[in-house]
Amino acid sequence: MRSASTEVIVVGAGLAGLSAARQLQAAGRQVLVLEARDRVGGRTLNHALTAPGAKPGTVVEIGGQWVGPTQDRVLALIEELGLSTFKTWGEGRFTDYRRGRLRQYSGRIPPGNLLGSVEAQLAINRLNRMAREVPLAAPWTAPRAAEWDGQTFQSWMDRRLWTGGAKELIELAIEAVFSAQPRDLSLLHVLFYIHSAGSLDLLINTEGGAQEARIVGGSQRIALAMAEQLGEAVWLNAAVERIEQDGQGVTVSGAGFEVRGQRVIVAVPPPLAARIRYFPLLDGLRDQLTQRLPMGTVTKVNAVYATPFWRRAGSNGQVTSDTGPIKLVYDNSPQDGHVGILMGFIEGSEGRRLLRETPERRRALALECFARYFGPEALQVREYIEQSWADEEWSRGCYASYFPPGVWSDYGSALREPIGRLHWAGTETAEVWNGYFDGAIRSGERAAAEVRAQLR
Amino acid sequence: MRSASTEVIVVGAGLAGLSAARQLQAAGRQVLVLEARDRVGGRTLNHALTAPGAKPGTVVEIGGQWVGPTQDRVLALIEELGLSTFKTWGEGRFTDYRRGRLRQYSGRIPPGNLLGSVEAQLAINRLNRMAREVPLAAPWTAPRAAEWDGQTFQSWMDRRLWTGGAKELIELAIEAVFSAQPRDLSLLHVLFYIHSAGSLDLLINTEGGAQEARIVGGSQRIALAMAEQLGEAVWLNAAVERIEQDGQGVTVSGAGFEVRGQRVIVAVPPPLAARIRYFPLLDGLRDQLTQRLPMGTVTKVNAVYATPFWRRAGSNGQVTSDTGPIKLVYDNSPQDGHVGILMGFIEGSEGRRLLRETPERRRALALECFARYFGPEALQVREYIEQSWADEEWSRGCYASYFPPGVWSDYGSALREPIGRLHWAGTETAEVWNGYFDGAIRSGERAAAEVRAQLR
Repeated sequence: MRSASTEVIVVGAGLAGLSAARQLQAAGRQVLVLEARDRVGGRTLNHALTAPGAKPGTVVEIGGQWVGPTQDRVLALIEELGLSTFKTWGEGRFTDYRRGRLRQYSGRIPPGNLLGSVEAQLAINRLNRMAREVPLAAPWTAPRAAEWDGQTFQSWMDRRLWTGGAKELIELAIEAVFSAQPRDLSLLHVLFYIHSAGSLDLLINTEGGAQEARIVGGSQRIALAMAEQLGEAVWLNAAVERIEQDGQGVTVSGAGFEVRGQRVIVAVPPPLAARIRYFPLLDGLRDQLTQRLPMGTVTKVNAVYATPFWRRAGSNGQVTSDTGPIKLVYDNSPQDGHVGILMGFIEGSEGRRLLRETPERRRALALECFARYFGPEALQVREYIEQSWADEEWSRGCYASYFPPGVWSDYGSALREPIGRLHWAGTETAEVWNGYFDGAIRSGERAAAEVRAQLR
Repeated sequence: MRSASTEVIVVGAGLAGLSAARQLQAAGRQVLVLEARDRVGGRTLNHALTAPGAKPGTVVEIGGQWVGPTQDRVLALIEELGLSTFKTWGEGRFTDYRRGRLRQYSGRIPPGNLLGSVEAQLAINRLNRMAREVPLAAPWTAPRAAEWDGQTFQSWMDRRLWTGGAKELIELAIEAVFSAQPRDLSLLHVLFYIHSAGSLDLLINTEGGAQEARIVGGSQRIALAMAEQLGEAVWLNAAVERIEQDGQGVTVSGAGFEVRGQRVIVAVPPPLAARIRYFPLLDGLRDQLTQRLPMGTVTKVNAVYATPFWRRAGSNGQVTSDTGPIKLVYDNSPQDGHVGILMGFIEGSEGRRLLRETPERRRALALECFARYFGPEALQVREYIEQSWADEEWSRGCYASYFPPGVWSDYGSALREPIGRLHWAGTETAEVWNGYFDGAIRSGERAAAEVRAQLR
């Protein structure tokens, strides 16, 4: 039995938990981070390439990977940790595949869908305006919260969008941002999320948006660097099963370990927080909240090639498509482009449909997509890497939890409110850049501040 | 360490689990039921009255309590077990409280809301017709499934109902049936549920519907009688934490016990099934399904009086109201009426709002409702019994899980499909009378049949 005593126990060594621990340690507090996995980083994960021709140590991200403008906390942290970023590859023309037809284009508007693009931009502007009416700290207090939380985003689309082209573009944007379908989401949640990021443009854009830049050495380095600073204060393979509060403190335990502390920060996604046993029991409002925040569904595919061959043909590697399973593609090659990597997302319904397919079939379907967009050369894969986050025991989905209709209204107040010695972190609890690295870090720092205010 | 070996292990001693075990035992199979609580019955629970004047042994139900026509399996089981039923009290006039005004009435239509009542009945007829298009085994294959699963029931109401009176009545019906709000529910799920019961009338009616009859001695007697037959085959205080499948069988364990068997029937609500650890891991589709089926929210209040005093005033004790927290009341007195009991439901948003109130405040608010409907005599309580099912560790809500938009479409196929040696029961998995005792029993019997077909 491994045991220890500390001041603050953090559950989960993702970006939220590690940020919280780092802040507390910097403030002179004793802290211990308990991580279920044999690694840190949560939903960020580097994969070291094994493809012939890849330089030793070259990695590609199979989890979250991007940062962008206004994500000030993660950008500052990257700098503090001595890391650096580089721009997502964007040189060349975009590719759009629609109704069986492949087109390359420059600029922002896909050809053959002018009306749809114009309507989509008007819809985006409208959503941005509506989003500003949603208070980030309490979305359920928005003047029109009852109306907006009473319907799915799909219902809003059905009522407001007229062209098939706009519907396709907005649906693709929603899938890309939430890894869920428009019907899964409360309109109020979509508006909250837009406001939380700043605008829908910031959410969906590469240049000038949340997909703008990558971290040199892979995004998991943010977590790895924080964990290195924390040193012995991070325990791996320590899946928390019980959290017991009493008058003097709190005991956190799992198979083979037990830790005693004054305060706990739970920094795991809500559906996983639900799987810990708490004593005394959590109240019904908090428990039922965690029954209502499902994780999105995404399988991320990276296909490694001898070269980024699409660049020769003038393509920037970025694809939008109406045909799955991969409807969004990016050029995910290493910064120096010494090998080529196409990265595709299988999101929402497409991702769910493939969860019970064989790996062989998923691979065939994914490569078929790349070949559809970039020709038969895309079948000459040197390494194929697929990561299904719903199948990961300690994430059970990506990118984040989302709010179905009604949940913000009836349960929102329980999202962050501490319960005795328990504090809640995780990107799902963030007011700003909810669902992103930046939100995770902000949530960890907010929880750390709560704890510091409570410790004598 | 308590340990045992058997053929079939059943997790959960509610009506589903006990029914499954009973069928298997009758078929000559070895079975062991593991129950987390110190009692059987799941969401049924008898409370022995302590009020002065109550005959010793008199009980009132603080969980599910009613049975009604077409619930053939539970009615047959009641008979097999030597139990009997009696009619829910219905003699006298109904009470309706609306816009500050109290009215008594006879017949089906509350006064002062003729137009609303007519429109509500037309809406009910329409919903009944739509419901018949939803296949019970696979609701997502309904011809209009995409449309119906893309919206909340609230959106349907907003579009289809014109009078405030009808909106109030339909909303109250939804709250009563689902202990959730119209905005929480997929329209497709509401239609499935209506079809599953037969009609919305069957769901909401007392006479001729799901609230028609009560069980002599209290509804928990169904579970108690089955458990008595099963004898040593039911282990209490055995909260299952792990289920491990291997080539030869399956090991089910928790604190202080371990059981080995050939097959497992998991007969707990989906959000609780999510809290068990499975090895090998469950696939992402099944896991994410259990993140998406939240339990309803209801606090059930029973107030015991010296006599059923409202009967003297010509009231049948049944109230509908537009003012919470209690908007639905029934006369829940013992069959012989030797004491009077008013029973009220605090459902959906009302229930959620009160979860973090003090017991004293909840009690005051509840009795205020009874006094509003029946006069100051309703404050002369001899015993006040309140049960909040969301606060119960091993239910975490009532009456049942519901499906938000999109869940049937993308996850419905994972609801019942066995995974290796694991089979899924529970009223949430029933095709007929889903969410009710009858559905629970049918689900247990269906799972038992699956297992029997697999055992050599």
